[in-house]
Amino acid sequence: MSLIVQKYGGTSVGSAERIKNVARRVAKWRSRGYQMIVVASAMAGETNRLIALANEVQSQPDPRELDVIISTGEQVTIALLSMALIEAGLKARSYTAMQVRIVTDSAHTRARIVSIDEDRIRADLEAGYVVVVAGFQGVDEKGNITTLGRGGSDTTGVALAAALKAEECQIYTDVDGVYTTDPRIVPEARRLSTVTFEEMLEMASLGSRVLQIRSVEFAGKYKVRLRVLSSFEEESEGTLITFEEDENMEQAIISGIAFNRDEAKVTILGVPDRPGIAYQILGPIGDASIDVDMIVQNVGHDGMTDFSFTVHRNDYQKTLKLLEPIVKHIQASGIVSGDRIAKVSVVGVGMRSHAGIASTMFRTLAEEGINIEMISTSEIKISVVIDEKYMELAVRVLHRAFALDQPA
Amino acid sequence: MSLIVQKYGGTSVGSAERIKNVARRVAKWRSRGYQMIVVASAMAGETNRLIALANEVQSQPDPRELDVIISTGEQVTIALLSMALIEAGLKARSYTAMQVRIVTDSAHTRARIVSIDEDRIRADLEAGYVVVVAGFQGVDEKGNITTLGRGGSDTTGVALAAALKAEECQIYTDVDGVYTTDPRIVPEARRLSTVTFEEMLEMASLGSRVLQIRSVEFAGKYKVRLRVLSSFEEESEGTLITFEEDENMEQAIISGIAFNRDEAKVTILGVPDRPGIAYQILGPIGDASIDVDMIVQNVGHDGMTDFSFTVHRNDYQKTLKLLEPIVKHIQASGIVSGDRIAKVSVVGVGMRSHAGIASTMFRTLAEEGINIEMISTSEIKISVVIDEKYMELAVRVLHRAFALDQPA
Repeated sequence: MSLIVQKYGGTSVGSAERIKNVARRVAKWRSRGYQMIVVASAMAGETNRLIALANEVQSQPDPRELDVIISTGEQVTIALLSMALIEAGLKARSYTAMQVRIVTDSAHTRARIVSIDEDRIRADLEAGYVVVVAGFQGVDEKGNITTLGRGGSDTTGVALAAALKAEECQIYTDVDGVYTTDPRIVPEARRLSTVTFEEMLEMASLGSRVLQIRSVEFAGKYKVRLRVLSSFEEESEGTLITFEEDENMEQAIISGIAFNRDEAKVTILGVPDRPGIAYQILGPIGDASIDVDMIVQNVGHDGMTDFSFTVHRNDYQKTLKLLEPIVKHIQASGIVSGDRIAKVSVVGVGMRSHAGIASTMFRTLAEEGINIEMISTSEIKISVVIDEKYMELAVRVLHRAFALDQPA
Repeated sequence: MSLIVQKYGGTSVGSAERIKNVARRVAKWRSRGYQMIVVASAMAGETNRLIALANEVQSQPDPRELDVIISTGEQVTIALLSMALIEAGLKARSYTAMQVRIVTDSAHTRARIVSIDEDRIRADLEAGYVVVVAGFQGVDEKGNITTLGRGGSDTTGVALAAALKAEECQIYTDVDGVYTTDPRIVPEARRLSTVTFEEMLEMASLGSRVLQIRSVEFAGKYKVRLRVLSSFEEESEGTLITFEEDENMEQAIISGIAFNRDEAKVTILGVPDRPGIAYQILGPIGDASIDVDMIVQNVGHDGMTDFSFTVHRNDYQKTLKLLEPIVKHIQASGIVSGDRIAKVSVVGVGMRSHAGIASTMFRTLAEEGINIEMISTSEIKISVVIDEKYMELAVRVLHRAFALDQPA
């Protein structure tokens, strides 16, 4: 019997009424003969409520204890959703990550899944149960409760789909798929019926935020068929994330415009241009579990170069502090930095075979008088860092410049 | 090093501020050199909020899932309390029942503790940690989350004190000890500095509600030194529950007046007076996990007798339904029942050696025109069932009649 994994986000389970709607949808799939695993997030607002409670007690909450408190959010939802499924006449049973068990490393508040014990779930599925699993949480080897970081419920869904070889992992959210850009900024944004895994990866990491990046990586690694759907619209088929390029012969050159204003930039000036210097700078940053996004270094001159990178704004102050001794040690001349930046990217697998994308992008921004502070490119995307006040404008003009409002 | 177990109830941890107060109190005990285990309940109102949420989804919440949702209440508190302890400069670590593990049977919403794995706690105590344990919850052999029933956190505290051989188990609540009766009803009620285990047992089961009855039984069985204290008053030494009668040579005849209006009474009329009939009636009630409190059967005549008992009001309708076929089967003549009753009891170990307690009790009630519907006695208590509207009056006049407002 085919297995479907469905994951419902916080707004989809934000009230008793919405939870009942989810139960009805699950029942519909179940009645078609599918075995069902449902992964649930905390009810909308609940995680923030719990974090606020923690902050009332401790200004920098202890990470182990923070995971203990925030993991209760999903536990509440899985119980409610199981009740709703039972009320709807189905057999259902909830599992916390500790019960499954979903084993992670011990990096509290940002743990990574190491393994999933599938036996108990498999037995329940065979016995006709809908298995409802708490997203976002895990347990380390020592039995401590961990969490996977914001959006980690997507990863839970994909990891379960991979472990149990599901036919499809459906991510239900408050949007009905992946758009050419955020419709709140560009009303003409269109839903993409398919998007390649690589594009999705770039879109997610660049801030489209429909799916957590790690879940997309996971899906790619284990070839999980991943679909993004709306839990509020019955009709839409959402967006399917594909892993085979030839499924997309008619691929548009550019699939979308992504953006992100959660980052801060740091430039170390006058860095001696010698081997190993990048590691000397970024090693301690990585050791402190700070994720670095863009890294830009241009060719040096006079044995010197400037080294720039971006980090999440939450890590900005910590990063500056960490860099102080490093700058001295490597005898760089100083630091300039700022957190009022935005990153805007054009993404598309079609980009590989088409010249001129970069020039169209830079010309379009120049015409609006938007200064480009940093540039970084990959095979399928071009990203620029600009002043955050121009972000919406940049997204709108690029969306138009690449004709994304026109049907492909 | 001596170990103290402290248990804090819902009002004691009802806000961030109160949790910080608890942390300060724990720190004070810790600074005196004690190893500390702290058992915490859900924040006041939280369990009811979660039950209401469950009821929104399912009118009769599935018991397994109900335990999953309500156990989150304590999990939130242990995280917050651990954070407060860490903020206060202590080493602290929280444990859910599943992490400890506190193994129970599988009777969801009213499970009983079977065993406690003490190794991990012991290791943490030796390493100088304050160990914060979620009260009220357990895990069954199959890994399902269970709860111990209302007030179950007391039982968790006593069970941990027994397993780890604590010097004392301190139950912090919103009253500073055991009183001769409820001060809300009789303002002259006095705090008892000691009360015997047996009296406490009768007081708790009869509705004094300071401690959950099972916790007192547990304490008696494992000879745990149990003290009831207020978390809001620093000065009071609370009430110590003693297990040696000779510690109380100057014991008053009557220690207190207990009462309970949570019960309903059922009388089966015209029951054939033959061996095995009580079992035929109560067997199915027990099988349905309904607790029976008072049981009264008078001598029969003409081969017939009337059989009465009381159950919790929540189980009243279910009990009546269960009795229908039984009444037919045993050919009894009918049922009379009512849930507008109250039970009032006088309790005291001194009663054993003093005649006349019963007559004083009955005369006092008669003088107020209060009709007695049922009577039941034990070695150290006399209980009567009366119309619930007379309950406060009965408690007040009995408190005065036995001179409980006078210092012993």
